[in-house]
Amino acid sequence: MKTLNFTVEEYRERVRKTKESMMEKGIDCLIVTDPANMNYLTGFDGWSFYVHQGVIVLLDQENPLWYGRGQDGNAARLTTYLDEADIYPYADDYVNSTEKHPFEFVADILKKYKQDKKCIATETDAYYFSAKAQAVLEKNLPDATFKDGYNLVNWVKIIKSPAEIAYMEKAAVIVQLAMQKAYDVIDIGVRQCDAAAEVIKTLIKGTDEFGGDYASIVPLMPSGVRTSTPHLSWTDETYKDGDTVILELAGNYRRYHCPMSRTMILGNASDKVKSLGATVSEGLTAALEGIRPGMMCEEVERIWAKTIEKSGFVKDSRIGYSMGLNYPPDWGEHTASLRPGDHTVLQPGMTFHMIPGIWLDDCGVDTSEAFVVTEDGARPFCHFRRELLVK
Amino acid sequence: MKTLNFTVEEYRERVRKTKESMMEKGIDCLIVTDPANMNYLTGFDGWSFYVHQGVIVLLDQENPLWYGRGQDGNAARLTTYLDEADIYPYADDYVNSTEKHPFEFVADILKKYKQDKKCIATETDAYYFSAKAQAVLEKNLPDATFKDGYNLVNWVKIIKSPAEIAYMEKAAVIVQLAMQKAYDVIDIGVRQCDAAAEVIKTLIKGTDEFGGDYASIVPLMPSGVRTSTPHLSWTDETYKDGDTVILELAGNYRRYHCPMSRTMILGNASDKVKSLGATVSEGLTAALEGIRPGMMCEEVERIWAKTIEKSGFVKDSRIGYSMGLNYPPDWGEHTASLRPGDHTVLQPGMTFHMIPGIWLDDCGVDTSEAFVVTEDGARPFCHFRRELLVK
Repeated sequence: MKTLNFTVEEYRERVRKTKESMMEKGIDCLIVTDPANMNYLTGFDGWSFYVHQGVIVLLDQENPLWYGRGQDGNAARLTTYLDEADIYPYADDYVNSTEKHPFEFVADILKKYKQDKKCIATETDAYYFSAKAQAVLEKNLPDATFKDGYNLVNWVKIIKSPAEIAYMEKAAVIVQLAMQKAYDVIDIGVRQCDAAAEVIKTLIKGTDEFGGDYASIVPLMPSGVRTSTPHLSWTDETYKDGDTVILELAGNYRRYHCPMSRTMILGNASDKVKSLGATVSEGLTAALEGIRPGMMCEEVERIWAKTIEKSGFVKDSRIGYSMGLNYPPDWGEHTASLRPGDHTVLQPGMTFHMIPGIWLDDCGVDTSEAFVVTEDGARPFCHFRRELLVK
Repeated sequence: MKTLNFTVEEYRERVRKTKESMMEKGIDCLIVTDPANMNYLTGFDGWSFYVHQGVIVLLDQENPLWYGRGQDGNAARLTTYLDEADIYPYADDYVNSTEKHPFEFVADILKKYKQDKKCIATETDAYYFSAKAQAVLEKNLPDATFKDGYNLVNWVKIIKSPAEIAYMEKAAVIVQLAMQKAYDVIDIGVRQCDAAAEVIKTLIKGTDEFGGDYASIVPLMPSGVRTSTPHLSWTDETYKDGDTVILELAGNYRRYHCPMSRTMILGNASDKVKSLGATVSEGLTAALEGIRPGMMCEEVERIWAKTIEKSGFVKDSRIGYSMGLNYPPDWGEHTASLRPGDHTVLQPGMTFHMIPGIWLDDCGVDTSEAFVVTEDGARPFCHFRRELLVK
């Protein structure tokens, strides 16, 4: 009854690399609470990350251990390659309790596996790992040593396997359908929520060959003055003549993302928006074409910055980040960023979202491409016209 | 250009109650990082909770202060009633950095407002408040005292205002449309992703009068053996003859939820599922009808447990929880639960999701109602047939 998205060998190889990194850092036990990392190491899937759950990697155990809420135990049985003995469901009165905390249960597991005097690392700055969780763990394991395991698995997963790239290519097919749908339905007088509904439907429906999964971020589609900031979504107002509409969408296939941004202009757009659109598109294309494996991330940003210099526009934020497998609230992997000071060396199989959006006081433009680093450059996942989408 | 969902007076009243609770607990400064609580106190909206952001309530300042990523500053300007002087955007190189942390920036704000020797509370077990955030804060404010402010605002918001109830009633209209759509489209041979696409479209489109917003949890709609656990969603497989399909959906209007669950059976369902469905429905109805203000939460659960006792089925998890305004990953408020040991007294204006699902080894049934406690009982938000949906 198990359904796995990758071979057991691929999962075991990921665990092996994780243990290798743990050994280098002197970590005996890694508590993985980031849902994307849990999925990466074991296959675990489900919208249960709203309660404390995780996967524990022990140097001296072959399989990771899963812990989570009792009613989610069957999700671990159905979606992971783990054995029954590796699955630790906790009782329901640990949930949202003022008296019991799930990390007391985690501490008990670690004692059972004789980790209570070992070096334990947690993902200290990951989503869903709270300050309280760390405090309860330290209180219940007074003889353990604690290290920071934040991003350890994220760095292991930065280079994608061919099977992972193939999933992202399916996500790319889906996001292109959704972007075209957005262009088709958005118009003056149409309600934003009606357009969003069609876009999301397209993302989930997928193609006749494969369906879509939910993206880690809902479609971001601000319009008008709301394009002065990148993370607003739709309202139930209608689009107006002269509106700029930013569309940041992502296709998702089995939790793997392919994001894409484009900017639409309805009717008469201001010259400022048109000029901003041309600048962003030119800089994006130059940076993409300039990428070579062996380059550092900051060099990609430098190509962008040099290209747009003459325009007078300035971008004071990073122009891209590593991404792939993820769960809400983010598809970014929190490792390499395309920005000054980032010395990560680009290697084949790394996947990024290059999104050099510029937001001014009253408007903004986003145009982006997801790409994979190849043996001799960068291959964008999508093929969709890169200029402003005028209607 | 500001768009507020409530009057400024209503926001100020919420802040006043929060300060009252802070004073009772000896807290001078409360750092609110839960996006629902940020929205509750200031109106702040946007999918920017994937970076560190928050709202700081100081006893000696009238308005809360907002801090967040630079590019999200305009979202604070557009969606909150705060003044320009209350808005603190941080530079982009704080994002996903190994050298700088946004809580250094927060510590600087607190020093500016002379809070560095005061009593500071954080939401220690809230989503998006990490162990690292707490550690950085404590390191940078060595003379401050720290307290736990987890759920402080959540308890303030447990009783909804008439304006909040009105939003939840709109969400109720939306979720009923989506549940009917699910019933209409789900059938043997239909792909799960195609059904999910129609359901989500309906949730976002809303009605001709008002549109829907995204719910904090995607539609959970496991089928077949996947109904043995509650938090799986769709796949791109087709529904099979004899499948049980659990549907847990929520309408959302301006971030306020109305969830509803129903269970469908396609073709020939097993007697076990039918019997389970009848039991859940009977227990749910009895518990709903038995509610009176002044009762404790645990008493509601007792009515349920007594009603289903004769069936032989057992539920070992809570049967409901307080809910309303929220952001991913949860619409629950983490305060009162309908379960043994919860002595919260039911008061008019409290809103719950009563969801006494039962999941066995190979199947499960979910039937739920969202309700508001009234002067003399409980009023369900929805009116949708409560039995198993047979097709």
